[in-house]
Amino acid sequence: MMELYPLPADWKEMKIRPYKKDLPYSYTCGVFPTIELMDHCPSAVFRVLLSEKIGKGGDLIRERASKRGIPVVVDDKTIARLSPKENCFAIGVFTKYEQTLDARRNHIVLVNPSDMGNLGTIIRTLTAFGFQDLAMIRPCADVFDPRVIRASMGAAFRIRVSMYDTFDAYQKICGDRDFYPFMLNGRPMEELVFTKTDKPYSLLFGNESSGLPDHFLSLGTPVRITHENTVDSLNLTIAAGIGIHWFTHRKETEQ
Amino acid sequence: MMELYPLPADWKEMKIRPYKKDLPYSYTCGVFPTIELMDHCPSAVFRVLLSEKIGKGGDLIRERASKRGIPVVVDDKTIARLSPKENCFAIGVFTKYEQTLDARRNHIVLVNPSDMGNLGTIIRTLTAFGFQDLAMIRPCADVFDPRVIRASMGAAFRIRVSMYDTFDAYQKICGDRDFYPFMLNGRPMEELVFTKTDKPYSLLFGNESSGLPDHFLSLGTPVRITHENTVDSLNLTIAAGIGIHWFTHRKETEQ
Repeated sequence: MMELYPLPADWKEMKIRPYKKDLPYSYTCGVFPTIELMDHCPSAVFRVLLSEKIGKGGDLIRERASKRGIPVVVDDKTIARLSPKENCFAIGVFTKYEQTLDARRNHIVLVNPSDMGNLGTIIRTLTAFGFQDLAMIRPCADVFDPRVIRASMGAAFRIRVSMYDTFDAYQKICGDRDFYPFMLNGRPMEELVFTKTDKPYSLLFGNESSGLPDHFLSLGTPVRITHENTVDSLNLTIAAGIGIHWFTHRKETEQ
Repeated sequence: MMELYPLPADWKEMKIRPYKKDLPYSYTCGVFPTIELMDHCPSAVFRVLLSEKIGKGGDLIRERASKRGIPVVVDDKTIARLSPKENCFAIGVFTKYEQTLDARRNHIVLVNPSDMGNLGTIIRTLTAFGFQDLAMIRPCADVFDPRVIRASMGAAFRIRVSMYDTFDAYQKICGDRDFYPFMLNGRPMEELVFTKTDKPYSLLFGNESSGLPDHFLSLGTPVRITHENTVDSLNLTIAAGIGIHWFTHRKETEQ
């Protein structure tokens, strides 16, 4: 379920401003993420800006826009104002939205992720391994920030994302499931034996610098990725990538 | 084996300039990477700069410097000139060096890596999983650039790194070994069965945008990380992290 934020009454003509967290809309920069947006969240898009210099990508965008009745404006001035990069030829402006996670599926839970590039990379990775649901516990990086969307290469539009003020709030809606918090003093992930179960699971990762708070040690099965002491911990995106890949390929034994 | 680049005759007094690729020296920014440098490549360090504002980290650095006869200079002006960040309180200046890889050990081979942050992150990751040898095929990012060293968090000083003009040049020195090029049209890595062998192996990863050239398909066992078609490929650092972790935990069957 996707619930759109309300837009101001003059939304059809309003001038699009550089992104701020409290605006009810955001935008993609670039042809590829704009197509991802139009394909996966068409009801949220309310305007597309194209550069005069756009090539073949423009046809792909115009085709989608005309099918869905989305206005297309050629407007290099606004593109230059919104995009920090020179080579942006398309911008898709969309209403922010709220989504409901699917309680029957496996989830990724990020507790207080702070870096926008990391968040985008993790979204791209979890999508690659078939996850479709991401929960984030506040305070957290803003998933609608154009920098997050760019780092995700538009994969942000392929998943359901939901933010919660506390982990308890997430637990209330996520249904009966297994939890695996990734913590430096958890059990070696590589030695876990998984028994066949119909329960979905959630993989939990903490903040870039501080990791997960200690109280997560009493939740589900805390796990760690086995590595040498040469580094004190892995980079968050690397840990998430390794953990997600490992669980995706986990072998389950019968009872 | 570590062979130091020659320094100019006035090296004892010379002014340290902001990093350029053609300088015979480079430097760390920050207490932690400076300690890593002094612990793992002590013979390369020829000067340490400390800020007046340095706290306890200064004692750790002075202790190491006095043991090894390395001059320490309090010099906030030079630190401000060399470091892009405000909170840098220590800089270790070192002569660049060349190293010989250990042909008996497993290697990571990066073919034309171009992003400095990625290179540093991959170095940190391979160190975490016990690799000590990194080969890079030119053109490639400069491993001595302070930005690479910072992204590696000093792990760059814990490994042997060697650069080659061609892959053939690397093959001439790397000894008899198994090669696993990571390529989108390789065999699923997760399905490989490894037979017990004493041979070391090399994991090969290509450039961020273009991957490995097609001719690597005829080298050893090309492998791919199994993922959905929702993204066309994984981010290079994520792919390297997943691949390195998987091989580190590979189970070998008797013949």
